Amino acid sequence: MEKIMIPPLDSNAAEVIKNNWAKMDKPLHSLGKLEEMVEKYAAMTGTALPDKIKSAMLLMCGDHGIAKYGVSAYPQEVTMQMINGYMRETAGSNVMARHAGADVFVIDAGTAFDLSAMPKVHQEKVAWGTEDFTQGPAMTVEQAEKALKVGMKVADECIDKGYNLLVTAEMGIGNTTSTAAIVSAFLGLPPELTVGRGTGINDERMAIKRKVVADGLAKNQPRLGDAMDILCKVGGYDHAGLAGMILAGARRRIPTMVDGVNATAAALLAYGLEPACADYMLCSHLSAEISHAKMLEVLRLTPIVDAGMRLGEGTGASLAIVILQMAINTYKELYKRGGMHA
Amino acid sequence: MEKIMIPPLDSNAAEVIKNNWAKMDKPLHSLGKLEEMVEKYAAMTGTALPDKIKSAMLLMCGDHGIAKYGVSAYPQEVTMQMINGYMRETAGSNVMARHAGADVFVIDAGTAFDLSAMPKVHQEKVAWGTEDFTQGPAMTVEQAEKALKVGMKVADECIDKGYNLLVTAEMGIGNTTSTAAIVSAFLGLPPELTVGRGTGINDERMAIKRKVVADGLAKNQPRLGDAMDILCKVGGYDHAGLAGMILAGARRRIPTMVDGVNATAAALLAYGLEPACADYMLCSHLSAEISHAKMLEVLRLTPIVDAGMRLGEGTGASLAIVILQMAINTYKELYKRGGMHA
Repeated sequence: MEKIMIPPLDSNAAEVIKNNWAKMDKPLHSLGKLEEMVEKYAAMTGTALPDKIKSAMLLMCGDHGIAKYGVSAYPQEVTMQMINGYMRETAGSNVMARHAGADVFVIDAGTAFDLSAMPKVHQEKVAWGTEDFTQGPAMTVEQAEKALKVGMKVADECIDKGYNLLVTAEMGIGNTTSTAAIVSAFLGLPPELTVGRGTGINDERMAIKRKVVADGLAKNQPRLGDAMDILCKVGGYDHAGLAGMILAGARRRIPTMVDGVNATAAALLAYGLEPACADYMLCSHLSAEISHAKMLEVLRLTPIVDAGMRLGEGTGASLAIVILQMAINTYKELYKRGGMHA
Repeated sequence: MEKIMIPPLDSNAAEVIKNNWAKMDKPLHSLGKLEEMVEKYAAMTGTALPDKIKSAMLLMCGDHGIAKYGVSAYPQEVTMQMINGYMRETAGSNVMARHAGADVFVIDAGTAFDLSAMPKVHQEKVAWGTEDFTQGPAMTVEQAEKALKVGMKVADECIDKGYNLLVTAEMGIGNTTSTAAIVSAFLGLPPELTVGRGTGINDERMAIKRKVVADGLAKNQPRLGDAMDILCKVGGYDHAGLAGMILAGARRRIPTMVDGVNATAAALLAYGLEPACADYMLCSHLSAEISHAKMLEVLRLTPIVDAGMRLGEGTGASLAIVILQMAINTYKELYKRGGMHA
């Protein structure tokens, strides 16, 4: 794959904001993480703070060959039903996204369904779902690169339209299984430490899920920390698309709000491809899935919203966007009103 | 003091909402705490969910006799400066409150300053600050009851005006010291487990603060778990006003968003006076002060926003209000749009 050049953070921009916060009419650092968020956003974009966070939430859809083993509480058809819900804008996550002022873009990066009758869906299908990774690689290198480019292309289109924040979202029955395999391979952790309950599976499915991950790793032997190899062998088109989006954003100094365990696995892959892209990530909330905290540690990310929320489908991101917007508004208004001392 | 009659929660209202969430177009419980918040709010108010959360943030101000020992990084004059900032609306917390759609009411329940030239301040001064509690009780029973009634009166006025959420805020140099003494006395904990860094004091002040709390407890011997006795002996007018406000809200089925460690100590006192009022509390965020988690356990409250935020001055509450509003909007919109299955 082509080398992605990622610019360094603008530490001056962050410093100016840090100094201004310190002069404002409030105890030092009393807005805590809100202050850091504004500093970080400024360092990323390297421009004046926007009045309005204009968020593009890219809902990357892909199916997983291993779904047939019953690793999820839902059958693969649910991928299609969920996309339908998104298009009708009746899903909880649509409503939350709208309240956060985020526009949702649905991308078929590799679902097992024909979505061509849905004109609003970005038709970017690389394949009809991944291959069963317990039998061999999930995708070829060509497919992986194509899926990465899908994410980069849609992200670039959004940035061209003026969006100043990218937000991850994903849909694909079985993707937390693929995520567990990615994390195991990337960080060298056994499936016991990476396989979680996903959308809420019982003990029987949990045992299957662990076996599928263990089998996938044994069969493919992905190379520790080698993002491209891991993506091809046990990843998904949803993961690939999101990783591409993160890289494209970072290249153009546009931050990505990483939401949930699947997107964080995609972020881990993006980081593996170009470590500097982690500078352009924000993390919305801590997932209940066991591997999430480990990944955030590697990426040096701190979640914005409380752990206990068990949110899914981009809803944690919507909350985090509202908080980021509030932090920026507070900074700008305090600065403008001259609520400063000394 | 008169007996405050607190109505039971409306468990039917909560049940209806719980069932509706379950029918909506999203994985079961996937909105986690957001779902619970809406159920809880409905159980508290027992009426149809409002379109708009109309919040009254009562900034209860009181000075503390023990401030003269240097328990805070700031001198007592800062109480006055901060109130000035609030009135000019240049404080960070004003800006955040405005973005959350909360109106701030400043109440002089017992500051050491003459605020009569500030027409927008509710002039309800019970005394010119509390007495030095290392030498005897902080206030008399009559003063404590008067201060509780101040909070009840202002809360009732706000509820009469149509506010459907009360929010705590407080201002008073030295109040985290009084808070530590309240928590020690109420829960039977030594000062080592209740005295924290407040606005960020050094080791020297920390030692003084611990000694002041220990001396206050030794001198006054407040009765374990006896809220009125504890309030009189080591409490503040800010605590008393907020406790009164919580009780008045609960009596009329109006929830209070409890924000920060000082307000939570006030909530503990309100709970001690009428345990049922805890049913009408929401908790905005977990404070970094060491005693906070212990208090929340007793009150059976779960914070809405992440621990790491180190927010102060009602800013955690502003975020929590935005989240509550978003949760209610999401529920209402999903319900209206018929985004339901089965």
